[in-house]
Amino acid sequence: MRLLDTTLRDGEQAPGVSLSPDEKVEIARSLERAGVAGIEAGSACTGAGERQAIARVTDLDLDARVTSFCRGMQGDIDLALDCDVDGVHIVVPASDRHVEGKVGTSRADNLENTAELVAYAKDHDLWVEVIGEDGSRAALDYLGRLAETSFEAGADRFCFADTVGHTGPEHTYEAVCRLADLGPTSAHTHDDLGLGVTNALAAVSAGADLVHCTVNGLGERAGNVALEEVAIALSHVYDLETLALEELYDLAQTVSRATGVQLAPNKAVIGENAFTHESGIHTDGTLKDDKMYEPYAPETVGRERRLALGKHTGRAGVAATLEEHGVDAADDEIADIATRVTELGDRGRRVTDADLLAIAEDVTGEDRERVVDLLDLTATSGGAVPTASVRLDVDGEERVASGTGSGPVDAAVSAVREALGSMADAELESYHVDAVTGGTDAVVTVEVTMGRDDRSVTVARSEADITRASVTAMVDALDRLLAADQQPLTPADD
Amino acid sequence: MRLLDTTLRDGEQAPGVSLSPDEKVEIARSLERAGVAGIEAGSACTGAGERQAIARVTDLDLDARVTSFCRGMQGDIDLALDCDVDGVHIVVPASDRHVEGKVGTSRADNLENTAELVAYAKDHDLWVEVIGEDGSRAALDYLGRLAETSFEAGADRFCFADTVGHTGPEHTYEAVCRLADLGPTSAHTHDDLGLGVTNALAAVSAGADLVHCTVNGLGERAGNVALEEVAIALSHVYDLETLALEELYDLAQTVSRATGVQLAPNKAVIGENAFTHESGIHTDGTLKDDKMYEPYAPETVGRERRLALGKHTGRAGVAATLEEHGVDAADDEIADIATRVTELGDRGRRVTDADLLAIAEDVTGEDRERVVDLLDLTATSGGAVPTASVRLDVDGEERVASGTGSGPVDAAVSAVREALGSMADAELESYHVDAVTGGTDAVVTVEVTMGRDDRSVTVARSEADITRASVTAMVDALDRLLAADQQPLTPADD
Repeated sequence: MRLLDTTLRDGEQAPGVSLSPDEKVEIARSLERAGVAGIEAGSACTGAGERQAIARVTDLDLDARVTSFCRGMQGDIDLALDCDVDGVHIVVPASDRHVEGKVGTSRADNLENTAELVAYAKDHDLWVEVIGEDGSRAALDYLGRLAETSFEAGADRFCFADTVGHTGPEHTYEAVCRLADLGPTSAHTHDDLGLGVTNALAAVSAGADLVHCTVNGLGERAGNVALEEVAIALSHVYDLETLALEELYDLAQTVSRATGVQLAPNKAVIGENAFTHESGIHTDGTLKDDKMYEPYAPETVGRERRLALGKHTGRAGVAATLEEHGVDAADDEIADIATRVTELGDRGRRVTDADLLAIAEDVTGEDRERVVDLLDLTATSGGAVPTASVRLDVDGEERVASGTGSGPVDAAVSAVREALGSMADAELESYHVDAVTGGTDAVVTVEVTMGRDDRSVTVARSEADITRASVTAMVDALDRLLAADQQPLTPADD
Repeated sequence: MRLLDTTLRDGEQAPGVSLSPDEKVEIARSLERAGVAGIEAGSACTGAGERQAIARVTDLDLDARVTSFCRGMQGDIDLALDCDVDGVHIVVPASDRHVEGKVGTSRADNLENTAELVAYAKDHDLWVEVIGEDGSRAALDYLGRLAETSFEAGADRFCFADTVGHTGPEHTYEAVCRLADLGPTSAHTHDDLGLGVTNALAAVSAGADLVHCTVNGLGERAGNVALEEVAIALSHVYDLETLALEELYDLAQTVSRATGVQLAPNKAVIGENAFTHESGIHTDGTLKDDKMYEPYAPETVGRERRLALGKHTGRAGVAATLEEHGVDAADDEIADIATRVTELGDRGRRVTDADLLAIAEDVTGEDRERVVDLLDLTATSGGAVPTASVRLDVDGEERVASGTGSGPVDAAVSAVREALGSMADAELESYHVDAVTGGTDAVVTVEVTMGRDDRSVTVARSEADITRASVTAMVDALDRLLAADQQPLTPADD
């Protein structure tokens, strides 16, 4: 059922967000794969660059309806027509605050203007939705008259807009019931009170058959209601299938990359931790039965389950992770290892699998020589050619090499690869630096994942010197990968 | 009305989060200032470190009830008693999946065990809440019997737990109505479907008089329902005052610092953008009337309104920001400046006030000589003592200086301050580096705000070399501040 519209326009109105035409095209393609009903590609009145971007999206000839936002003036509709859109959202004021204070008109003139604009747009073969701006703070009778006027003039639908995220589910339900009696009704909800989803669901149960959403809940202020949350809630709780849910995570990442707005780790569906289990009880339960601590399988939304180690880790989580790394340990050793993982977590440390392996070696007494060790590191940056040199101990042999790069870390990584030669042919699967806030002497946390063949190792380091933190983590990860090649902790015939 | 409980325990179960005893004490003090009903300080069975942390919180002698989580076994209650808590949450399975699959017991034995544990805890003068784990997937009849058994054994309350974030508001309402008929009922909701708030409100309207929340919505997987969202929704929509709302932002920041989990920019109440306006329509409206695009004043939750510049900025926003910086421009100039700001935003750039001032100078023809310019920068890092040198042009005079620091950026900042002497006595009000994801050659965005007296300037730079980006931004900000001192763009007698 095509129930969900996405408003790229509102998402892009999030402070600091701006999408290039190429990015809009990429997102529109991704939305089409997910199967949204419509894509509000932009606001044609914003400028020539924006119109070019909207036109690029209409050129894609998508199944989804492609529309432009228009202020309540004919010129805006003309600009939208220039972009060859399928339809327009005409925004007219609904509350007295917006009718009088913002637009400076009267209730009666507003009705007349709305009727004229709708007729004009319909004359130009556009699909037309009238959005009664600030509708949640409007007098319900006037909102009804505005909708009636719109429908009489030929509008395809009227939108109940909680523009400022002001209202609750009871009022939304009442208002949408009334509007849905008059004609097709959509809902536009914001999350200022955390009620974006609540109100969207209230609107649907009151008869709304279209909901405006944004990917990742971007938008003005606290954002619009998140597409992925409405879609999964309607599917899981109400058996209402609106989208290809398995596309949601790719879509979220596409939008996050394009907008530069990171996904919050604890965000439903799309957050890094949405399917991660750390606590002992939850990990143990999940290992026994996937459904024990998950409402739906991560694959439903195109994701995978992850077990993390930390303060709340129990024995089951430790045993499962050791097994992944091919490490054998007796039950009493696993208990000791779990205690030490908990202690490390207790100190507020992120516990990576490299930490776990180091603890396991210590507990099982399976000591090993390091294959690669960082002896010295010097990186010079700030000038035209960031340059670095390293001195490594590689299997007892000292190796020195230098490298250049786009910054100090990149230069140092080149130097390490140069020193190791073919031994370094592991892939840097991910490099992540936590956002730094505070002073220039703040401690920086770097997490590096390196992979070779089907094995990967993650190492985290926290230091004030980002170069040192990054290179130490990388060398430690390489050392782990090389050690596994040379001297498996658990020989195959053990 | 003391309706909101906070579960530090569940918040800390978020993957990668671990709080030290000092951090728990700081958060508990902050929660007490906000006026929460209770604080679940931890899980006494986790280990000695955790018990010490819980004891530190109970030692504070707060008005809020301080409790521990206990698994359904007497030993856990004994460990909680060791911490001198006011009460316990005893978690017993409610769904068949948890009764049989997780705990490996039967419905009948589970009832018996629950009654014994409650009696034991009441014998030790504890406040007792029984949490029926996975209650939202339990048979409603059995859930009712579990609650009845708990109340008959003396429990103070029973909690309807949507442990895995599985259910919707209709089922929550039905279940809580039934439980609230039997005795005091609380609700524990998770956000896996984005329904944390929806279900919490449904529970309250069904008669629940306590809601479990976490600050910033931290917790297992997608997290628990966010304290700040439930509090503002109850206040704004239902006139139900549960907390000192003006403490919410401080509380959010305290928890974000302690856990290392950044606040999402588009999160209700606490996100950086929750009260930021960028688009022309919204900025213009807000400048006319605060309430035009805000459901409630930012001061309600201890915050301030912010205007941002970007692709959607209009003339009103440009004029207001120029005025803040004491820059005079004619109407046609403001229109030109707004167009150029939009163009800069169109390219996906964050537009800072330094960018605006540069554009304004260009448009108004008020060219100025730079007071400080960076000619050369070299920073060495990776070794024991990060060291940097700079060559600056200061009012036509060349100055060279060096400095050391905890990393390359910190060393370079010392060198700049050394070179400028007393001219550099401006405060670094904030230094922020966006999280870096991808390769080691990723472009890094640095935003620096420097302030002197009551004026501050923000500059953003994006480069692959973090040292260069940081120092260039800092020097540009200092240059702006010094220029304002020496040659105001708008003389006072203009």
